[in-house]
Amino acid sequence: MGAHVFGAEKEKAINPAIGLELFHNFTLIHDDVMDDAHLRRGQPTVFKKWNTNTAILSGDALFAIASQYMTQIDDIHLRQMMELYHTTVIDVCKGQQYDMDFEKCASVSLDAYLEMIRLKTAVLPAACLKAGGIVANASASNLQKIYDFGILIGLAFQIKDDYLDLFGETAKFGKTQGGDIIANKKTWLYLKALEVAPKTKHEILTKAYHTKPENPSEKVATVKEIFLRLHIDKLALEEVRKYYKGAIEILNEVEAPDSRKELLRELAEVLVNREV
Amino acid sequence: MGAHVFGAEKEKAINPAIGLELFHNFTLIHDDVMDDAHLRRGQPTVFKKWNTNTAILSGDALFAIASQYMTQIDDIHLRQMMELYHTTVIDVCKGQQYDMDFEKCASVSLDAYLEMIRLKTAVLPAACLKAGGIVANASASNLQKIYDFGILIGLAFQIKDDYLDLFGETAKFGKTQGGDIIANKKTWLYLKALEVAPKTKHEILTKAYHTKPENPSEKVATVKEIFLRLHIDKLALEEVRKYYKGAIEILNEVEAPDSRKELLRELAEVLVNREV
Repeated sequence: MGAHVFGAEKEKAINPAIGLELFHNFTLIHDDVMDDAHLRRGQPTVFKKWNTNTAILSGDALFAIASQYMTQIDDIHLRQMMELYHTTVIDVCKGQQYDMDFEKCASVSLDAYLEMIRLKTAVLPAACLKAGGIVANASASNLQKIYDFGILIGLAFQIKDDYLDLFGETAKFGKTQGGDIIANKKTWLYLKALEVAPKTKHEILTKAYHTKPENPSEKVATVKEIFLRLHIDKLALEEVRKYYKGAIEILNEVEAPDSRKELLRELAEVLVNREV
Repeated sequence: MGAHVFGAEKEKAINPAIGLELFHNFTLIHDDVMDDAHLRRGQPTVFKKWNTNTAILSGDALFAIASQYMTQIDDIHLRQMMELYHTTVIDVCKGQQYDMDFEKCASVSLDAYLEMIRLKTAVLPAACLKAGGIVANASASNLQKIYDFGILIGLAFQIKDDYLDLFGETAKFGKTQGGDIIANKKTWLYLKALEVAPKTKHEILTKAYHTKPENPSEKVATVKEIFLRLHIDKLALEEVRKYYKGAIEILNEVEAPDSRKELLRELAEVLVNREV
């Protein structure tokens, strides 16, 4: 899509697209080890199916193979692509570290949370779009705009993800409702609640989040009720919409024929309106 | 040294040199997790000092930072350097996988062992020298020769390493004498012994290597005696010398002033004659 906006054929973009997809999968393989996640896309994770060593080493090798794909482009774009790619890798590593650090922090500001999801999640769609722009010879200012568009839809996507975990229809979303609450995950919902909650609710929230619940669904119900009273559900959707709007505004500024932006507009809409 | 042979100033080589050093350290951080190694250079390994997650993630980030250094060279060398670098990374991953696989194999051929140490160990000095050659604008044939020289001194180094583990002076080498035997590591010594041993010794060797010893130093003594009777110590040193000679022959063929090859000749000699 990033290449299409700027008029390039998809053949130009296919190798870096494969590279970024493989890079993403490498990070998932390692993240699943670090997060002790047993399922991914409904399948056992690599370290559960095989073992930790296999997950570490096949991740490393996949990272290198991803890097090879990133270089399968014209010479004139090679340096710019490598710079984007390496910066993105380092950003994603930082994001994962912040995510793990936050689990041990008593309090995390919403700003710190947004920076974490920017690094861990949003730089990837941003880098994908920019990579397409690079092979399409887009100008520096257009590359920056398409990147920023990617960041904003990435942030919107993650906050919607946090929202759906608790307020989505379980059947569609395919996860346990409130899984983040059970796992004491400091999501946007929780951090926003701490920001707006009066002192009494504050204590109930932090206490609920720092004890291992005997009855998980009871804990989810308690926290959900507090969230609803504080209108965190509405605030979350407003926040998603804010980023969505910002993304569309930037997309409008991208110098490209309007017809070529259609796919990206649809993408942004799908991500924001998704219910699963 | 690789740049120096072909007349380039070290400033040209410093960034990829840092990159390859960091890459090497990334592989050590992950290898130590996989091998459950508690000490490295006399210090606690990253995963022992911190934890496995820190070792996985800081390794990944270090890999990305190493890759950034590899690109800090002139545009005309960028593609060739990236190809060398990514191939080397994949080779080293393969070597580590073979090394772990071999631990579970009843028998490993000497050829398979040599291929394993070529991938796990020897491609690194080879890639370092070739990287220097690339920034020094060396010809394709000279690059191949300096690479092959690196492979041969890498193989010589590793077999000498296997030799010193059992026959080196403990104080100098700084490890437990026979540590490889205690750990049932299939070294060149062991595999060569299996190749040349008569059937009776063969059984004693394989049995010793497949039981957890009650008395480790007794096991080392038993195996060492068999090795000595089979002259494995002399055969190992002959093998080291064979690769050393092969390396010097290739170095002689490299088209460069003899004076500029002096450092590499010294390097080869130091690696082969080292006693620690």
